[in-house]
Amino acid sequence: MGKVFSKQRLLAELNNCSFYPGIDPEELAGKLSILAGIGTTVEGGITRFPYTDEEKSAKEIFKSWMEEIGLIVREDSLGNIFGVLEGEDPSLPIVLTGSHLDSVPNGGAFDGPLGCLSSLLAMKAITETGTKPKRSIELVVFVDEEGARFGNGLFGSRVMMGEVTASDLKYFKDDQGNLLYDEMKKAGFNPDELASCYRKHEDIFAFLELHIEQGKRLESENKQIGVVHGIAGPSWGSIIFYGETDHAGNTPMEYRKDTVAAAAEFILEVEKSPRMFSQTAVATVGKITVFPNGSNVISGRTELSVDVRDIDEQARDNLLAHLEAKADEIAKKRGLSFEVEEGIKIPPVIVPEHIQQTIRTASENNGLSVLTVISGAGHDAMSLGRYVPSGMIFVPSHNGKSHSPEEWTSLPDCVNGVQVLKESILSLANQ
Amino acid sequence: MGKVFSKQRLLAELNNCSFYPGIDPEELAGKLSILAGIGTTVEGGITRFPYTDEEKSAKEIFKSWMEEIGLIVREDSLGNIFGVLEGEDPSLPIVLTGSHLDSVPNGGAFDGPLGCLSSLLAMKAITETGTKPKRSIELVVFVDEEGARFGNGLFGSRVMMGEVTASDLKYFKDDQGNLLYDEMKKAGFNPDELASCYRKHEDIFAFLELHIEQGKRLESENKQIGVVHGIAGPSWGSIIFYGETDHAGNTPMEYRKDTVAAAAEFILEVEKSPRMFSQTAVATVGKITVFPNGSNVISGRTELSVDVRDIDEQARDNLLAHLEAKADEIAKKRGLSFEVEEGIKIPPVIVPEHIQQTIRTASENNGLSVLTVISGAGHDAMSLGRYVPSGMIFVPSHNGKSHSPEEWTSLPDCVNGVQVLKESILSLANQ
Repeated sequence: MGKVFSKQRLLAELNNCSFYPGIDPEELAGKLSILAGIGTTVEGGITRFPYTDEEKSAKEIFKSWMEEIGLIVREDSLGNIFGVLEGEDPSLPIVLTGSHLDSVPNGGAFDGPLGCLSSLLAMKAITETGTKPKRSIELVVFVDEEGARFGNGLFGSRVMMGEVTASDLKYFKDDQGNLLYDEMKKAGFNPDELASCYRKHEDIFAFLELHIEQGKRLESENKQIGVVHGIAGPSWGSIIFYGETDHAGNTPMEYRKDTVAAAAEFILEVEKSPRMFSQTAVATVGKITVFPNGSNVISGRTELSVDVRDIDEQARDNLLAHLEAKADEIAKKRGLSFEVEEGIKIPPVIVPEHIQQTIRTASENNGLSVLTVISGAGHDAMSLGRYVPSGMIFVPSHNGKSHSPEEWTSLPDCVNGVQVLKESILSLANQ
Repeated sequence: MGKVFSKQRLLAELNNCSFYPGIDPEELAGKLSILAGIGTTVEGGITRFPYTDEEKSAKEIFKSWMEEIGLIVREDSLGNIFGVLEGEDPSLPIVLTGSHLDSVPNGGAFDGPLGCLSSLLAMKAITETGTKPKRSIELVVFVDEEGARFGNGLFGSRVMMGEVTASDLKYFKDDQGNLLYDEMKKAGFNPDELASCYRKHEDIFAFLELHIEQGKRLESENKQIGVVHGIAGPSWGSIIFYGETDHAGNTPMEYRKDTVAAAAEFILEVEKSPRMFSQTAVATVGKITVFPNGSNVISGRTELSVDVRDIDEQARDNLLAHLEAKADEIAKKRGLSFEVEEGIKIPPVIVPEHIQQTIRTASENNGLSVLTVISGAGHDAMSLGRYVPSGMIFVPSHNGKSHSPEEWTSLPDCVNGVQVLKESILSLANQ
């Protein structure tokens, strides 16, 4: 395990931060540290699940910071928080910006909070310039982006875009069997007023989210800002091989119907197939469940998660079909059977060229190096991007680490991101 | 799931049982059913862990049956049960026969109990013939053969042969963290008197155990009795690959250090390598532990159990070395590291030819078909076989199932086994 988050580690690079009017690097380090202190785990990570005391504390502090810079703050019936900076013409479609404050189990300090704080500091800098933008700018903190508790990711943003129905709330449960619906009520929200959380798509002119890259490309290529040109459409599912549970000692090799071996063959197909379909596709088996999982038992059932993503939807779906055909081939050859459990299939989102260009221009005006990247991870920008022009600004992740206590972005990189976000927001808000 | 144990299912084949003097198939079915009823699980299997109330009940009933046929019964300080049928010359080394009554979790009705009951019914039949054998015959029920609770298999038989020391008792723990030592005390035994359980090797003339095959060879080749010519020496260990935990969406295929993929490559080596070293070697990965085991996370650590067995110790050890070299090759190629955790390595046991011949003759005298087989599973006969001539009689396992509620041996096959065991014991006891 490498180093974990600390305020000292952030501030060690204070002197390397660029100066941007209205943006205080120490404030960013301080506020990041305060949020990192809520839900801290013994491993130095953060667990901040939706509808828990930890998440509530983080949101309460964040609301107070929004009020401090003069935003008009409200929370909807499900827990999305909004803060409005009124523009010259409040009747115009708004520019929306923000991220989330919930986390994965034992996650990092940057995934989510850095986006929220960048939006906060960008809006503070905008208010301090004195000139009112044409359009209103709204900060949003989406509830339950990670889906780590109820398996229902991008929840707040999907609700806002009108994609979630009342029955969904009574379907999703946490590991303790608590219904999302009940937990929302216990946390003081009103799941029966789902419709009050929908927002009209035409009221949003653009959405911008700053996020850590969660990959190694920016660092590897020594670039400061990632302009996201597309968010890969993830597809999650699983495949189960069925064979025969037998005694590892008394079953000769040629009598076996070993699902672990079949799974191994399939995993190697998952690893080598993406490049056959596109340059940007990725495919991963990250979770394996073996039954009965005994060291002296040949496994009669093995289940694999299959995560396939691409910004090219057709290539992704061809890759999925190819993997299913391979599973069939492997199962037939070995005299096994298999089953595919289809999970979520989300279409990719392409960031409109004018949004990408806004971010690119803001970066170049500040002398920052730029790399056009895709986001392999899903983000709230994906929920919005299906309906309104949405873009993302990536800042470098040290060693690509994310969803881990080792998640890290240097303070200079964070501050550069805030400046690019600020100028991009302002540019859009004045259109 | 196929059919599970029931007395009715056993008795459905009562009319197909051969008649052997002094052996009552209905008694066997009845006593098997009584034991199967102790520790029954909802899935129709049996969980009877050592030093629990379930195991105690099974042992108490069994002791009463031993007394009913006139054996002199005693239990040692650790819970091995012995019942003596005195021979003409009690000063001669004895013939020992028996098995165990403990089980794996949700195991079957035959693994262990059938061996104990076969010895019981064989000794009953011997007493009913009226002629006293030359040597005394002793029935043994070994405690904790499976090692399912404390991870310390063949416990009772290893104690008896003097292989277990006092410190071992304070080392092994169950899943709840209870020490073997403490649990023995709680169950009314005296772990401080370990040495009183040792038996002199020279006092044992031979040991015979009847057991279900737990494999498919007898059934496949349509044979009634398996004469075991060797018990494969098992080696258990694990291998851990270390790579990098990364985001499944944001890490291009070429940047990954994916331990699940490395593990998959290794599993296929484990599957294909045994035949390169011997005709009898088997190798199995039955247990996989992935960290963090998230569907959208590239795994940074994957641990595999590796179970390698052969009756040819040199071939087995060469196979182990080959697999370690393959792990090194896979790790190097992928820029990963790995670690081997060596577990238990037990030397194989070869059954002396005169013991094999005794069983073969007893089978042929009764017109039963014979197959010479190896035991891939470890048994108490392995603990004894290192010091005294020890043999095993296998009866067919339906579909090879074992350690499962589906474990099954037909009543005619069981009864044939009792007869072969009886004649083999008698032949040895009269030498």
